[in-house]
Amino acid sequence: MNFHLVSIFPQYFESPLSSGLMGKAVETGLVSLDHVDVRQFAGGVHKSVDDRPFGGGPGMLLKLDPMIKALDSIDSPGRIMMLSPRGKPLTQARARALSAEEDITLICGRYEGIDERLLDLYPIELVSVGDFVLNGGEAGAVCLVESVARLLPGFMGHEDSGEEESFSAGLLEYPHYTRPDAHEGLKVPAVLRSGDHGKIATWRRECSLTATLNDRPDMLPEASLTVEDIDFLRTLPRTRLGRNLYIALCHYPVVNKFGEKVAVSVTNLDLHDMARVARSYGLGGFYATTPIEDQKAMADTILTHWKQGAGSLANPDRAEAFSKVKVFDDIEAAVLDIEAQTGQCPRLAATSARLDRRKNAEPALTYGDVQSWLANSPVLLIFGTGHGLAEEVLSKTDGVLRPVRYLDDYNHLSVRSAVAIIVDRLVADEY
Amino acid sequence: MNFHLVSIFPQYFESPLSSGLMGKAVETGLVSLDHVDVRQFAGGVHKSVDDRPFGGGPGMLLKLDPMIKALDSIDSPGRIMMLSPRGKPLTQARARALSAEEDITLICGRYEGIDERLLDLYPIELVSVGDFVLNGGEAGAVCLVESVARLLPGFMGHEDSGEEESFSAGLLEYPHYTRPDAHEGLKVPAVLRSGDHGKIATWRRECSLTATLNDRPDMLPEASLTVEDIDFLRTLPRTRLGRNLYIALCHYPVVNKFGEKVAVSVTNLDLHDMARVARSYGLGGFYATTPIEDQKAMADTILTHWKQGAGSLANPDRAEAFSKVKVFDDIEAAVLDIEAQTGQCPRLAATSARLDRRKNAEPALTYGDVQSWLANSPVLLIFGTGHGLAEEVLSKTDGVLRPVRYLDDYNHLSVRSAVAIIVDRLVADEY
Repeated sequence: MNFHLVSIFPQYFESPLSSGLMGKAVETGLVSLDHVDVRQFAGGVHKSVDDRPFGGGPGMLLKLDPMIKALDSIDSPGRIMMLSPRGKPLTQARARALSAEEDITLICGRYEGIDERLLDLYPIELVSVGDFVLNGGEAGAVCLVESVARLLPGFMGHEDSGEEESFSAGLLEYPHYTRPDAHEGLKVPAVLRSGDHGKIATWRRECSLTATLNDRPDMLPEASLTVEDIDFLRTLPRTRLGRNLYIALCHYPVVNKFGEKVAVSVTNLDLHDMARVARSYGLGGFYATTPIEDQKAMADTILTHWKQGAGSLANPDRAEAFSKVKVFDDIEAAVLDIEAQTGQCPRLAATSARLDRRKNAEPALTYGDVQSWLANSPVLLIFGTGHGLAEEVLSKTDGVLRPVRYLDDYNHLSVRSAVAIIVDRLVADEY
Repeated sequence: MNFHLVSIFPQYFESPLSSGLMGKAVETGLVSLDHVDVRQFAGGVHKSVDDRPFGGGPGMLLKLDPMIKALDSIDSPGRIMMLSPRGKPLTQARARALSAEEDITLICGRYEGIDERLLDLYPIELVSVGDFVLNGGEAGAVCLVESVARLLPGFMGHEDSGEEESFSAGLLEYPHYTRPDAHEGLKVPAVLRSGDHGKIATWRRECSLTATLNDRPDMLPEASLTVEDIDFLRTLPRTRLGRNLYIALCHYPVVNKFGEKVAVSVTNLDLHDMARVARSYGLGGFYATTPIEDQKAMADTILTHWKQGAGSLANPDRAEAFSKVKVFDDIEAAVLDIEAQTGQCPRLAATSARLDRRKNAEPALTYGDVQSWLANSPVLLIFGTGHGLAEEVLSKTDGVLRPVRYLDDYNHLSVRSAVAIIVDRLVADEY
C-alpha cells in the first residue's frame, strides 16, 4: 500500500513512520511512503509556499500553485484526502475501509490552511482526527497512516491482532493483566487465572460494559447489546442527572394566539403524560401551576384517584408516576418547594416554540448549557400551555431553551410532545 | 512547560517535535521534552518490557515493573495522562485547560496495552484522540503535545493565532483564499477583495454556518447561534431524512395487560399529537390503523373537521398537520400506500417498551440501524396502543427498536411521548 504524503515538512514523518512495527512494514515493502515536498514545487528565489489571505485575518495560507504542482507530480495518487478540522472524523470503520485501497494521498495543511480553490480542482475528501487544532495536518496524517497500515494482512506478524477488541463491538476494551500475579497487594483477578474460558469471556464482557458505561456512555446507544448485556448494565450504579431536573407546566400567565395574557384549563392527559415522563426519566418532580381554585381542586381529584383511589389499584404504575406530581399556585411556589427539598435554589429555564426576536435578547440556551447546570444544581424547566409563557414568566428565568425544531418553519408540537423530546434530549444520555 | 514522554519508543518523537514552530518552541525553551525510556527500567538480560496476558488472548502487555520505575524516575510529573481509546476525547477546550499546567506526563502504551494495576497505583487520566486504534500511544501524544503547546503565549510568534476560528464558536472555519485572484477561471470571491470589513465578516460567518451544516451538523446543537445565524441556516438546502420516515399507530391487533389480543379505540388526542409530530419533523406520513368500521368513521369525522371543516378555519396549522394522516384497516394497507407513493417497499421497524426476551430473538435495532435504512428507502415505524403490538405484527417486521429507557426498570411512557422521543432521536440531526 502506498501513502503519498504531501507536506512542507516531509522530515516530520521520519521517526514516527520508522519506529516499531510501522518501520518493519516499510522495510518489508508492505507499506511504501512517498514524501512529496511541496516546497520543491515553489517558484521564485525564496521558494515561498505561503501568502496572506484575501479579506484580512491572522496567519498565512499555503499558495495554490505549489500545491497543484505537488499533487500533479504523483503518478498514481489514489484517493486524495486532506487532514482538516472540517473533515468527517476518522473512525475505526473508516480506517478499515481505507485499508483496502492501493494508494492514498494525504495533504497536510500548515499555517491557517490552504487556498479553498484546491478543493474545487481535486476530488479531495476531508478527514479530521478530532475536535482540536494542530500546527498542521502531519500529526493527523501519522494517526491515519498508522491506523490504516496496521490493518493490512501481515502487518502484525500474526493474523488476529490488527482488529483489537476496542470498538469492534462498539464497546471499550476490557482490562489486561500480566505477571507478577501480585504486586504490593494488588492481585490479578482470580477469574483470569481460573482456566475457565467461559467465565473469563463473561468477566471480560462485563468489564467492557462497565468501562463503556462509566467512561464512554455516548457509545452505548449504538453498541450491539444482547438482553444479557442490558440486564448486566441495569445492575451497575449510574449517574442520574435526571434527579436534578424538575419540570413545570404553567397554566397562568400564558398567552393566547393574539398574544393576550390568559389562563388555560388544566387537562387530565397533560398530567398523565408528563407524570409518566417524569417517572420514566427519574426526574426530581413535576409541578402543574394554576392559581384558579376549581382547577386546582380538579387536579387534586385526578391525583387522588390515581395515587390512592380506584386508579391506583387498577394501575399501580400510574400511581408511581403521579407520586411525582404537585399542584401549586405559581412557579414561585414550585421554586420554594425545590429549595425546601434540596436546600439549593434551582436555576430556571423557559421553553418556547419560537425564537426570541426581541432586541438585545440573550442567545437561546443550548441543551449543553442546561446539562452543565444539572451537574451542579437543581433546574426547573418551565413549559407553557396555550401559545406559550407570558413575558412576566420568561423575564424571571435564567434563559430560554433553543426551540426543538429551530431550523424549521413549522414548530407546532403539543406541549406533551415537547416535554417528552426536551427531557429526553437533556437526560437520556445520563445512563 | 514540561512534557514527560513515557514510552518504549522515545525516538518516535524526534522528528515531529523538532519540525516547524514546535521545534522552535523546544529550542527557545518554551517547551521542554523529557524522554523517559521505559526499556531502560527493564530488568533481566533481555531488558524485556512485555509479557503475555493472564486469561489468554492475542498480543502482549507492557509489564508493571518497568512502567512503575519509569514513572517514579520523574521528579515532577504534574498531571499524569495516558493515551487510550478508553479515555475521554481530547477537545480544544481540554487542550486549553492543559495549557495552564507546568508539567504533563504522557504515558504511551504499546502492544495490547498496559497492566491495569498501573491505574490503581497512579492517578492517571485517560485521554483519547479518536475512535480508531493505533500501534501505541505515541501518535496521540504528538497530537496532544502539539495542540497544547501551540496555545502557550509566544508559541505562534504573534498573539492572536493560537486560538483559531476552528471550534472557537462551535462552528467550522470559513474558507481562505490567497493570490492569485484568478486561477484557470476559479476566482477569489469578490467580497474578499471589496475592502468592506462588515460584508467580509458576514460572508465568513455565513460560510462557517454553511460548512458546519453540510459537514459537521452534529456540532450545530451546541454552537452559539444568534437569531440571524438561525435565519440564515433556514435558507440553506438540507438533507431531509424525515421524508423517508412513516409512522403507524396500530389499534389492532395489540395486547392488553394480560397478553390477550385485543382492539383499542382510536382517540382524538393520539391523532392530534402524532399528526403534529409528523408535520413538525417533515415525515412522509402517519397511518392510524383499525379494521373496526365505526372507529374508522369516527377518525374520518375528526380528520374532516380539522382538514376541511370549522377546525381548519380556526387553526390552519392543525389542518396542515392532519394532511399527513391516513386511516387504514391494517399495516399491510399502509405498506401498499407507501409503495404506491414512493415506488419502494418500506422496511418495517416495530417499537416496544419491553426487551424482546424470546429465545433466539434478534438483538434490538439501534437508532443508527434505522437511520442507515432511512438513507436508502422508506421506513415504516410501527407503534402499538394498549400494552403493545401483538406477536403477529412483530413477526412481520424487520426488527424491533431498542426500548427508549432500556436501562431502567420503569418504562411506562404514553404512546404519544414515545412517538415524539423516537422520531426526534431518529431524524432530529438531519437538519
